[in-house]
Amino acid sequence: MALRSPAEFKEGLQDGRVIYYKGKQIKDIVAHEDLGIGVEHVSLDYELAENPEHRDLYVWHDPDLNQPCSRYFKIPETTEDLLNRRRMIEESTRLADAVVLLIKEIGSDAIFALDLITNKVDSKFGTEYRNRLRAFLEQCKVNDFSLAVAQTDVKGNRSLLPSDQEHADYYVRIVEERADGIVVRGAKAHTTCAPYVDRIIVLPTRAFGENDGDYAVSFAVPVNAPGLKLIASPFGSPPISSFHHPVSSRHRMIDTLTVFDDVFIPNENVFLKGEWQYAGPLANTFVEYHRFTAVSYKPPLCDLFIGAAALLAHYNGIAKASHVRDKLTKLITYTETVRGLSLAAAHDCLKQDTGAVVPDITKTNLAKYHFANGYHQAVSWVQDIAGGLVVTGPDE
Amino acid sequence: MALRSPAEFKEGLQDGRVIYYKGKQIKDIVAHEDLGIGVEHVSLDYELAENPEHRDLYVWHDPDLNQPCSRYFKIPETTEDLLNRRRMIEESTRLADAVVLLIKEIGSDAIFALDLITNKVDSKFGTEYRNRLRAFLEQCKVNDFSLAVAQTDVKGNRSLLPSDQEHADYYVRIVEERADGIVVRGAKAHTTCAPYVDRIIVLPTRAFGENDGDYAVSFAVPVNAPGLKLIASPFGSPPISSFHHPVSSRHRMIDTLTVFDDVFIPNENVFLKGEWQYAGPLANTFVEYHRFTAVSYKPPLCDLFIGAAALLAHYNGIAKASHVRDKLTKLITYTETVRGLSLAAAHDCLKQDTGAVVPDITKTNLAKYHFANGYHQAVSWVQDIAGGLVVTGPDE
Amino acid sequence: MALRSPAEFKEGLQDGRVIYYKGKQIKDIVAHEDLGIGVEHVSLDYELAENPEHRDLYVWHDPDLNQPCSRYFKIPETTEDLLNRRRMIEESTRLADAVVLLIKEIGSDAIFALDLITNKVDSKFGTEYRNRLRAFLEQCKVNDFSLAVAQTDVKGNRSLLPSDQEHADYYVRIVEERADGIVVRGAKAHTTCAPYVDRIIVLPTRAFGENDGDYAVSFAVPVNAPGLKLIASPFGSPPISSFHHPVSSRHRMIDTLTVFDDVFIPNENVFLKGEWQYAGPLANTFVEYHRFTAVSYKPPLCDLFIGAAALLAHYNGIAKASHVRDKLTKLITYTETVRGLSLAAAHDCLKQDTGAVVPDITKTNLAKYHFANGYHQAVSWVQDIAGGLVVTGPDE
Amino acid sequence: MALRSPAEFKEGLQDGRVIYYKGKQIKDIVAHEDLGIGVEHVSLDYELAENPEHRDLYVWHDPDLNQPCSRYFKIPETTEDLLNRRRMIEESTRLADAVVLLIKEIGSDAIFALDLITNKVDSKFGTEYRNRLRAFLEQCKVNDFSLAVAQTDVKGNRSLLPSDQEHADYYVRIVEERADGIVVRGAKAHTTCAPYVDRIIVLPTRAFGENDGDYAVSFAVPVNAPGLKLIASPFGSPPISSFHHPVSSRHRMIDTLTVFDDVFIPNENVFLKGEWQYAGPLANTFVEYHRFTAVSYKPPLCDLFIGAAALLAHYNGIAKASHVRDKLTKLITYTETVRGLSLAAAHDCLKQDTGAVVPDITKTNLAKYHFANGYHQAVSWVQDIAGGLVVTGPDE
Ligand SMILES: Cc1cc2nc3c(=O)[nH]c(=O)nc-3n(C[C@H](O)[C@H](O)[C@H](O)COP(=O)(O)OP(=O)(O)OC[C@H]3O[C@@H](n4cnc5c(N)ncnc54)[C@H](O)[C@@H]3O)c2cc1C
Ligand SMILES: Cc1cc2nc3c(=O)[nH]c(=O)nc-3n(C[C@H](O)[C@H](O)[C@H](O)COP(=O)(O)OP(=O)(O)OC[C@H]3O[C@@H](n4cnc5c(N)ncnc54)[C@H](O)[C@@H]3O)c2cc1C
Ligand SMILES: Cc1cc2nc3c(=O)[nH]c(=O)nc-3n(C[C@H](O)[C@H](O)[C@H](O)COP(=O)(O)OP(=O)(O)OC[C@H]3O[C@@H](n4cnc5c(N)ncnc54)[C@H](O)[C@@H]3O)c2cc1C
Ligand SMILES: Cc1cc2nc3c(=O)[nH]c(=O)nc-3n(C[C@H](O)[C@H](O)[C@H](O)COP(=O)(O)OP(=O)(O)OC[C@H]3O[C@@H](n4cnc5c(N)ncnc54)[C@H](O)[C@@H]3O)c2cc1C
Repeated sequence: MALRSPAEFKEGLQDGRVIYYKGKQIKDIVAHEDLGIGVEHVSLDYELAENPEHRDLYVWHDPDLNQPCSRYFKIPETTEDLLNRRRMIEESTRLADAVVLLIKEIGSDAIFALDLITNKVDSKFGTEYRNRLRAFLEQCKVNDFSLAVAQTDVKGNRSLLPSDQEHADYYVRIVEERADGIVVRGAKAHTTCAPYVDRIIVLPTRAFGENDGDYAVSFAVPVNAPGLKLIASPFGSPPISSFHHPVSSRHRMIDTLTVFDDVFIPNENVFLKGEWQYAGPLANTFVEYHRFTAVSYKPPLCDLFIGAAALLAHYNGIAKASHVRDKLTKLITYTETVRGLSLAAAHDCLKQDTGAVVPDITKTNLAKYHFANGYHQAVSWVQDIAGGLVVTGPDE
Repeated sequence: MALRSPAEFKEGLQDGRVIYYKGKQIKDIVAHEDLGIGVEHVSLDYELAENPEHRDLYVWHDPDLNQPCSRYFKIPETTEDLLNRRRMIEESTRLADAVVLLIKEIGSDAIFALDLITNKVDSKFGTEYRNRLRAFLEQCKVNDFSLAVAQTDVKGNRSLLPSDQEHADYYVRIVEERADGIVVRGAKAHTTCAPYVDRIIVLPTRAFGENDGDYAVSFAVPVNAPGLKLIASPFGSPPISSFHHPVSSRHRMIDTLTVFDDVFIPNENVFLKGEWQYAGPLANTFVEYHRFTAVSYKPPLCDLFIGAAALLAHYNGIAKASHVRDKLTKLITYTETVRGLSLAAAHDCLKQDTGAVVPDITKTNLAKYHFANGYHQAVSWVQDIAGGLVVTGPDE
Repeated sequence: MALRSPAEFKEGLQDGRVIYYKGKQIKDIVAHEDLGIGVEHVSLDYELAENPEHRDLYVWHDPDLNQPCSRYFKIPETTEDLLNRRRMIEESTRLADAVVLLIKEIGSDAIFALDLITNKVDSKFGTEYRNRLRAFLEQCKVNDFSLAVAQTDVKGNRSLLPSDQEHADYYVRIVEERADGIVVRGAKAHTTCAPYVDRIIVLPTRAFGENDGDYAVSFAVPVNAPGLKLIASPFGSPPISSFHHPVSSRHRMIDTLTVFDDVFIPNENVFLKGEWQYAGPLANTFVEYHRFTAVSYKPPLCDLFIGAAALLAHYNGIAKASHVRDKLTKLITYTETVRGLSLAAAHDCLKQDTGAVVPDITKTNLAKYHFANGYHQAVSWVQDIAGGLVVTGPDE
Repeated sequence: MALRSPAEFKEGLQDGRVIYYKGKQIKDIVAHEDLGIGVEHVSLDYELAENPEHRDLYVWHDPDLNQPCSRYFKIPETTEDLLNRRRMIEESTRLADAVVLLIKEIGSDAIFALDLITNKVDSKFGTEYRNRLRAFLEQCKVNDFSLAVAQTDVKGNRSLLPSDQEHADYYVRIVEERADGIVVRGAKAHTTCAPYVDRIIVLPTRAFGENDGDYAVSFAVPVNAPGLKLIASPFGSPPISSFHHPVSSRHRMIDTLTVFDDVFIPNENVFLKGEWQYAGPLANTFVEYHRFTAVSYKPPLCDLFIGAAALLAHYNGIAKASHVRDKLTKLITYTETVRGLSLAAAHDCLKQDTGAVVPDITKTNLAKYHFANGYHQAVSWVQDIAGGLVVTGPDE
């Protein structure tokens, strides 16, 4: 198969998965008035791979499988690979009005990190995690899977390790080991896209101590696995009108509280099991890749700020006012600093033993820092130029 | 009468006023599920005047009328008067969970400004505006009126004066002069509380040129005047739940597009009519008072930020983390700078010819500047401490 | 006597005091080419008290002594007293081209703090420090003394208390107790004006622990006391020309390393001796007063920035450029925020048991914070407007 | 010849050049106690080309001349060329304790810009400037010339063009055209290194109008040309001691007011003469290259800040304090943002018609912006960590 159509992707979601929303269980996520917006939004990923204009970028001919598959699944081995990822992410986000898709980006970040860390764990402990991971990656390619990543635990008291918490379940953990797999319990918070992906990859959220072995667990799981329950967040829902909310009425990310109510994970899907020393490195390596993803999808949003500010200035007849030019210049400075540093991170990437490359960590972090540190200020400049009408305007 | 109960206030709103909301006309604003929240919110003003604990602050014995009336209507003549206003505004806002009431604060700001400027216009042009204003003020006291102020015009191209605009109606203007009054046309944007006050005071929004005489108009008008139509903004409506929106589900300000469809204003309610040289001074003087009001009601919101941040830090188990202490210190710095400068503005107020005082203009503006300039940053500190749950959390 | 002339002040400095500068001992501080600038600078304090235009502000008729004396020595008991202090400090600094004098300001801050804390120590321990302090204050008034304050110790490792340091002498301490007094050893760093004042007041620099009793010491000492040696700092010396350095070639503060080489202090000049619990409160109370002094003498410097920037803009022909107006506005914002908060601190001062008032601590600290936090930025605006000539210009 | 030794370089300066300093004419710049520091400082450039460890980077084998010459003179044609330039500049600056050398960097920037613009002027006007420029470049290579650039005019009123100024001489201009050359008059301000280079390249400082033809002039001139007078700036001179000024007592840049008192320039050294339309493009193109140079030599200074701050923190015993770690992190963020964006500018350089590349303009400007915008703040962090001793410490 290797490449699926949007329709095939949607079909695949009809698999008995358990989703709750505003207190009720959702039968058909695709058809759901509210959550369906999320499904429609991300199916752009499958459209782009079919689209002649974009196919070359989004599709990659895998030499091992000897078939075309999503380029997201290519482990980056050169600056060029990283620049291609940047472009894929930046372009699809731009096409979706600055709302990132995230059904393969973050999942492949997790795969890249697992590929590096399982290699280390295997050589230290003689385990076989990397083979499992590679087999999983092949499935992703062949079935053109969409993926979510559940890393962030609910965590309780942030100053304490899992084993020191008041409740044992503040972090997801192994409650039973069987010959053919493990049983996990707990909940992960804010898992983006979980209701409408094929697989969820679970990663530890931080470094652990030696008493936290049960919490040092990583695996992949189909969303319809028995015992897996998604509670979708109502935030941003419903937007009152496409007039007032032209973006969020068409493009949405849905996050879930992802509950593992004693879910069985067969061994072939388990990538870390008790090796607590590697929980931290795995969490960090994932973040190193994922932060690069993040600084690739932020610039289109910043571009939108610039464009919106320029258009609003035009509407208000103030395009030539010096304070407006100043604010536009600052918005551009903000945007291009993030973009420039993310490009620099790709150029100065670091080669690993496995042949994979990791984007330069300092530059990736700096790009992220500048985005986050300047974000509220950037919003304020757009608002300043807009005037009060955006919050007091009458209806359509 | 002089002081009304909350019930009497609500009764007064049943006067045939014309309000549109989400495309439909509202029959009963008080009973309305959504807009009624605004009515309930502001009726606190009338409760406080009855409440033994607060009465001394909110009620003032007027020596001229020789009866108790709302202290908001006392023209400030000393630092003490200004400090009392600050206290009234800060305290009522605090009691309303940091959402200001604004049904007398802003109206009295307009009255104080009119009192100073009509005095100047009268001495220059031999008009009698100040007597009319004083008569109107007496009505406000005796009937315990609630007031909105419609100053901001829709404005069109911000770089042009009214008479240079593409449409003559971008600013409210006089379209007819009669022996007993004037007829006005146009619309004012974002008038706060208009749907549930007794009177609206109209002021010019900026300085004008000599061709803009028709736009140099100020008057008071009952909300049910024929031709007056309010189109209420749907923003912030409806909040999905009191769980996720504990403040805005109970406290709201409703703003309107305030349409003057050839409304007749009898002479006794007209305070400026064509004296374009005084449009600017009137607009500015109002703003000088109103900015002092603004910097009086902002600190409780900032206090709420501090408190929320401290509570969230406690929940997350990070109250002692140095970055948290740093953020709390910055929030306090932010808050107390605004508060301190607003107090300084009262202390260094400027005595006017009429005996009234105006809060120190530089210090008032600085307090406002620090509030506005630091606002987005302050919000970001609270969000940082909160973590992601506030935007991805499941429902109640 | 009570009020001295500048000449009498200078005469008083010829008392055998031991001062080293650039490796040599200075014979005559007044005549010294370099350090003499400092003497001339501070003698303005004595001029103002003689000057008919300024006398009313700087001279105060002490009701107890029934004679005129320097108003700096009046313990503040009202907002008006604090506002007078602000005015004296701000005005003298302005007259000295924004360089503060500091020969009575800081000393009286120390006296005010000692007056409050000796009161507490006496009631706790039955000591008589406050009487001694009052006697010393009377001497200051009667002899019109100039004063320096040596609080900051050299300190060594900043994370350790004095008794935990590698060397016992990192903080000034008592090395011997005699019937009639104590002997102190150690050094205080950067003592401003020490070479040309009559007395130095020594205060502890921080809170101590119970093992630090020997370090909990406060006293007054004449500058020519045997064993006292001042090593003056060469920083800012010599300014190359009055053309390039119009201010610092005429107005300078000289700081010393103040060495106590076993100096005997008679009991009547000792104000704290071993009561370590009060070292912290004394240090803090001094700082509370002194910070108010600091925020009183900073605004003239800020005013100078504004004026210099405006003049430079004029020279460069860019006074109307929007970026220049923006920078000037920011400089004014900066300046008036500091000034406004320092005024607010005086208005909201706190009455103490003794009848004295302390400026509002939060507001004083905020004024100081805004000054320090914005200082480098403010300098950058002036430099931006100036252009490169200020650092590459040829000589006179 | 192609490569000179430091001694040969110094010898070359003994050519009768006219330099004034503090009102006196300097006979021997090399031996001069004060200005000689600048000569010694820049001679590092010649040392590096001889040094086996650095030679590969600083020396380039020119294929046309078929001999080794300074790599600074290689016109950049690839990202690699730009990265080499960055490295040369960053490394030599680092070796000189963060003070840039600037005797070839800025001159080659001018040559690169002239190479691009003369190409355009020649094709538009049929002139032969580019051949002259190429010939001059060959001389630079063969003689291993050091160069200064005099672009910035004294300018007078910054809002007016040269021909609108009160005085005709506020910008350097052509006062006479002869068959074999031109005579120029006027002065350029703050020309760095002028007293100790072989040639000065003159460029226009801004875009001009059609009346400013006489001011549209560019040329190269030997420093001992008759009529050329340098007035060196005394700023930063003398540093009092190598103890207090360990860097500036050994490394200095000297700037001059560069006076053209009717200097004759032979045709072969003239690169623009009256083509006012190209004054702006030439000024800008130079700046595009030069800004890349600037953001290459700034990071070593920033590194020094980081190192100094870390060392001072260690001395003060506060290396683990959270505010110190915070400040160090901010210093690193500052430094690596500048460095990262300058690298990104090299990676995304723009190919020109001539085959040369220009560093990405936006990214270069952003690197410069971040450096300049954060500079004062960065200094304040270092000062905060240092404490007061750096300005009040006694002498050696
Ligand atoms: C829209 C959205 C989408 C997301 N999508 C995903 C997803 O798909 N998959 C996924 O796994 N996660 C996802 N996340 C989670 C995201 O990674 C986390 O929000 C982030 O890591 C912060 O964690 P938190 O929300 O638990 O906040 P916390 O980490 O609890 O932070 C709250 C505060 O506590 C502080 N803090 C925390 N620990 C300490 C400590 N030890 N010492 C001192 N201070 C501390 C923090 O600095 C912060 O100020 C998403 C989040 C959002 C908002
Ligand atoms: C929640 C809310 C409640 C309000 N309540 C009231 C109320 O009760 N009564 C009332 O009268 N008003 C009210 N206002 C209106 C408020 O006073 C205005 O929003 C404010 O004055 C700005 O006006 P504006 O929204 O038209 O924006 P504009 O003034 O149009 O500003 C938009 C942008 O244009 C710029 N701009 C405007 N003019 C120029 C110019 N000439 N040159 C260069 N730049 C220019 C501004 O700087 C800004 O960046 C309210 C507003 C809000 C948001
Ligand atoms: C021009 C000038 C004039 C002065 N005049 C006088 C005067 O007349 N009399 C007088 O007594 N003093 C005077 N001072 C001293 C002044 O009060 C001190 O400079 C100030 O208190 C800071 O002390 P410090 O210089 O020892 O720096 P430190 O206090 O050593 O500070 C250096 C760094 O260490 C940090 N630090 C210190 N302790 C800790 C800790 N425990 N934990 C974490 N971080 C820590 C600081 O935050 C700072 O970043 C003067 C100073 C100057 C610059
Ligand atoms: C240490 C040092 C070394 C230098 N070395 C060299 C060198 O080797 N060669 C060389 O050619 N130059 C050199 N320069 C000059 C440098 O390029 C200039 O300082 C810089 O371009 C600014 O010019 P200026 O100093 O004349 O300031 P100006 O350009 O006059 O700027 C002063 C102020 O005026 C404003 N301004 C200027 N024009 C306008 C306008 N039209 N509208 C509005 N505002 C305006 C500026 O924004 C600024 O705020 C050096 C400068 C320094 C400080």
